[in-house]
Amino acid sequence: MESEPKKLLLRALAGERTERPPIWLMRQAGRYLPEYHLTRAEAGGMLELCNSPEHAVEVTLQPIRRFGFDAAILFADLPQIAAALGQALEYKEGEGPVLSPPIRSAADVARLSLAGLHQELAPIYETVRRLTVALPPDVALIGYAGAPWTVATYMVEGRGGGPTDHAAIKQWALSDPEGFQPLIDLLTEAIAQFLEKQIEAGAEAIQLFESWAGILPEPFFELWCARPVAAIVKALRAKYPATPIIAFPRGAGLQYDGYVEATGVDGIGLDSTVPLAWAADKVQARLRRCVQGNLDNQLLVAGGAAMHAEADRILAALGHGPFIFNLGHGILKTTPPEHVEALVRQVQSWRA
Amino acid sequence: MESEPKKLLLRALAGERTERPPIWLMRQAGRYLPEYHLTRAEAGGMLELCNSPEHAVEVTLQPIRRFGFDAAILFADLPQIAAALGQALEYKEGEGPVLSPPIRSAADVARLSLAGLHQELAPIYETVRRLTVALPPDVALIGYAGAPWTVATYMVEGRGGGPTDHAAIKQWALSDPEGFQPLIDLLTEAIAQFLEKQIEAGAEAIQLFESWAGILPEPFFELWCARPVAAIVKALRAKYPATPIIAFPRGAGLQYDGYVEATGVDGIGLDSTVPLAWAADKVQARLRRCVQGNLDNQLLVAGGAAMHAEADRILAALGHGPFIFNLGHGILKTTPPEHVEALVRQVQSWRA
Repeated sequence: MESEPKKLLLRALAGERTERPPIWLMRQAGRYLPEYHLTRAEAGGMLELCNSPEHAVEVTLQPIRRFGFDAAILFADLPQIAAALGQALEYKEGEGPVLSPPIRSAADVARLSLAGLHQELAPIYETVRRLTVALPPDVALIGYAGAPWTVATYMVEGRGGGPTDHAAIKQWALSDPEGFQPLIDLLTEAIAQFLEKQIEAGAEAIQLFESWAGILPEPFFELWCARPVAAIVKALRAKYPATPIIAFPRGAGLQYDGYVEATGVDGIGLDSTVPLAWAADKVQARLRRCVQGNLDNQLLVAGGAAMHAEADRILAALGHGPFIFNLGHGILKTTPPEHVEALVRQVQSWRA
Repeated sequence: MESEPKKLLLRALAGERTERPPIWLMRQAGRYLPEYHLTRAEAGGMLELCNSPEHAVEVTLQPIRRFGFDAAILFADLPQIAAALGQALEYKEGEGPVLSPPIRSAADVARLSLAGLHQELAPIYETVRRLTVALPPDVALIGYAGAPWTVATYMVEGRGGGPTDHAAIKQWALSDPEGFQPLIDLLTEAIAQFLEKQIEAGAEAIQLFESWAGILPEPFFELWCARPVAAIVKALRAKYPATPIIAFPRGAGLQYDGYVEATGVDGIGLDSTVPLAWAADKVQARLRRCVQGNLDNQLLVAGGAAMHAEADRILAALGHGPFIFNLGHGILKTTPPEHVEALVRQVQSWRA
């Protein structure tokens, strides 16, 4: 009996120059899809949706059915791990996730605990297990978590949505790095365990979202973005060396340079500002790692010739691989689904 | 009669490795100072303050008197040039500047005009003239403007303050680059003229604020951030070759690399995420240009050992020059003035 051919996304993450790039899009399951709203309403709300494997599987599958993406990403919400550590999580209309009380001191950190982690996150593991059965055989399943610094911003600011100047976390972290470090250490351990369980449940690749990589001066970026991600990569590699890991340090700027080496990730997500020549020369050619990105999400809203021209530019520069086509940030809720359809068709018909 | 010794800031911008770096801070005149609030109230509001040379001179001088900065920056507000082109500008409590109606089409651009530019901006030129007399002889006077792309974001979004996803300008600019270009061209011309007049009035150096350099994919960054700034630099050089120009492309990320060469600026402002080794190796050593930055503004709020340690790190890496000490972003209104005092003392007592 022949072994199954390896999925396109996993081949790209293994450093292979695939005949065409696989494509998936951050937030591909979400508010721009009418069927998502129906399922969310049926579940009774955001948290209910995330904690109901039946509904979470359904919304994960919706964009796969509609567009034929090459990968599905587990539907769950980034702040759920904060709730699993003991912070109260609720969703307020128009505000997004609210975490209370905010974590602002060593005493607050000491009240958090790993003890209930896996019990709280059990519905997520069940969602992953069901997805391994429900997904088409050529679609890879990506598990995910927020990276420690990004989850910490949610926990300290007390909210996960909307714009913020991150005054609370920066005041604490920058003025008392030693006092703040235990929160990062706790999150590093929790996230590594969370991802291990996702892999055990059937996740074939992992993405770490570092949405707030762009707000730290260099020494603190190294301390709280690069190092904890390196520790998580090391922990996962020790147990599951075959599972590739993508990190997406959005807004890292010049600190993108050195991040792959510092963390050891298999793939790096590029935000929309990253010059393609840097990614091709440095990451693909020199480091021989996979890059993922980086169409501007407003161009997916715009659609048409402007979108196709930018997608072409990205494909021409990076499409020879190893490469995964994606956006430079999550899909916006204003995105017309037919633009997604057209983009997927463009990428999937392109040849290296 | 001997000629006056050249001011420290101008020596640094000429590429000189000064005995210690000059220091000024973005938004050094502003809401963190109690005396600023008094003068603003006396003037009757923000726009009144900007358009009253008497009061604008006073707030420009306040931080010079208090802290002994090595440079003063003209007090004016970035959206004033939009008003001078014909858009209505008002300040709404809690919202900041509001520009109406927003510019969203070629027809909107066609209604703007350079005809009234200098008449509208005359109070600013008068402020500059008065400052040349009022400033201590060793303090350099910096004129400024927003860079074309950044002013365009204000004009298209219809507001200048607060967080935004820039959906309006990105939808227009990215989906119809040719239709959008005339706004950039108009602003490039207007800003070049505005800065020429400031130099004629006595500004000794110029800073171009590109606050929104970090939201454009590479080809559009080149088109609307790098090229217009290069055009302004060229226009100013032709008339005033001795006046140095600093640009601050905040959030440019990996596109910082190449920006000095593309624009021809004498100095480049670094946001807080820029690694110092890049600035030292690439800008100071290889290009022999001046760098300016980049203490995190939240560290100035924090003060104490954390602030001094980061300032020391910056001084050690860049202080040998050519270098101007500054923040990586504007002073926050929550900043205690005594922290500014302590920072100025630290930088001014440092020796290369």
